[in-house]
Parts: sequence; structure tokens; C-alpha cells
Amino acid sequence: MQDIRHRVVVDAPLADVFEAVATTEGISAWWTRDGVRGGSTVGSRVHFFFGQPEPAAVVEVTRVDPDGHVAWACVGGADEWVGTELAFDLAPTEDGTAVLFAHAGWREPTEFMAHCSARWAYFLLSLKAYLETGTGTPFPDDLRF
Amino acid sequence: MQDIRHRVVVDAPLADVFEAVATTEGISAWWTRDGVRGGSTVGSRVHFFFGQPEPAAVVEVTRVDPDGHVAWACVGGADEWVGTELAFDLAPTEDGTAVLFAHAGWREPTEFMAHCSARWAYFLLSLKAYLETGTGTPFPDDLRF
Repeated sequence: MQDIRHRVVVDAPLADVFEAVATTEGISAWWTRDGVRGGSTVGSRVHFFFGQPEPAAVVEVTRVDPDGHVAWACVGGADEWVGTELAFDLAPTEDGTAVLFAHAGWREPTEFMAHCSARWAYFLLSLKAYLETGTGTPFPDDLRF
Repeated sequence: MQDIRHRVVVDAPLADVFEAVATTEGISAWWTRDGVRGGSTVGSRVHFFFGQPEPAAVVEVTRVDPDGHVAWACVGGADEWVGTELAFDLAPTEDGTAVLFAHAGWREPTEFMAHCSARWAYFLLSLKAYLETGTGTPFPDDLRF
């Protein structure tokens, strides 16, 4: 199994970062504003849209803890994503809030995984920009690479 | 062992991307302009400086192939980096040149590794910006996170 792991520090209170990763409205501000549809509670399914009629990813929410933990199990979308697990673990630091992100359980270290790794870092910096300046770069405002 | 892997497509010819990752002058334009000291041939040692008197990393060049392959073995600097291997593998695509980057062989998936993963994605986007616009964001012009 292969994992993507990133750490980014955001100059914002933990409660604000939690809101941005735990709610559909929050996620829309930094990952995709084309559509984040579903609930925000454990057991809910969330569909993420990126300009196509079908969702690019479907996850089941597996953890929502206001102390700073959100986790999803990927149950639909890109074939390589199905079966992977995603987590946002937040912790206060002297510079704000540390976001430890994991997208774990990839079957193979493919070029698509490497692409997604760079994309996740880009969108975590979009999360940082959204919380620090009010403006993120969610799809379709994102840089394509 | 844990690996960082990123893939970024740069809208530039492979030869230009190769120059940017294979030469000390090229690397200065997107990773650190505080100091990239050493040779660019196999067996050379390169010291990378980030605002401190001691280098943050020292690598030995292990591969330089103008077909699009550069590799380094880390021999000094941050303790967690020593013994790791870095590689830039380039391939032409219809949108330019794909950069497949690996920083492989970490002993543990630490928070520092997760920090470095996000940092590498940021600097690969700096490489992209340098080659596409003429201006990258090497240290100390980089965003801190």
C-alpha cells in the first residue's frame, strides 16, 4: 500500500479549519465549487463534481470530531481511488493550525497517484489561502497541471 | 520505506526542463537562490543552502541523462534525508513535459516527511512557473507553510 501525506500550517483557528474540511460549504471554497453534494455527518455519502455529469469521487464520512479530525472512505469515482482512505487531522501550533492530510491505501504507486499527490498539495494551499485571505482556488479556478 | 511522488506537467520542451533540474543555475531559479554549490556531473556533490551557514541538504549526483533523467543520493543535511534518493524523470506529453519526481526511501512516514511532500509540490510548481513565465518562487521568495 502507498500513501500520500502532506502537512500544511494555516494561520487560522482550529475551529475555522475544521469547518472548512468538515462541511460541504467549506470544501466548496477550496477544492471544487462545481459541486459538493451530501451530508456532513458520519455515515453520509458525499459526491464531488469536477465539471462532469458523474462525480469524480464519492466518499462515506467515517469520522467527524470537532477536536480536529475528519475522515472519509472512498466508495466511488476514479477506479484507483475506490478503497482508499482520506483523513484531515488538525492540531494547534504556534503559527496557527497544522493540517496533517493523508490519502492512504493506494494499491500501486502509479503516475496518477503522483499527479493526485501534487494536486492535493495544491488544494491544501488553496485551503490555506481561503482561510487566510478569503479566496481559495477551487476547481474550476485552479491551475491545471 | 516511504516515498514522496509527484507528477507535474510543464509547458516547455524537455531539454529546457532538463536544464532546470540538472544544473546548479537551473535549480537556483526554482528551489533555492540562497546557494546551490557543486558540480552537475555524476559523482559530484551538491550543497543546497536555505538561509543558514550549513547546507540544508547535500547530495551526490548519481544520474544525469539528457534523455530526461536526473538522480541524486542524499548524503548530508537533515537527518531524515540522509540515505534517501531523489529523482526527476522527464517525458514528453502533448501538453509539454511531464516531470515525475520521487523522493524515496524515507525510514518513517513522519510529520516532517509530510511537510517535505507539500514543500516539494510547491517547488515543482515553482519550476513550472519559472519555465512558463520566467519567474519561479525559490527560497527566500517562497510561501512559508
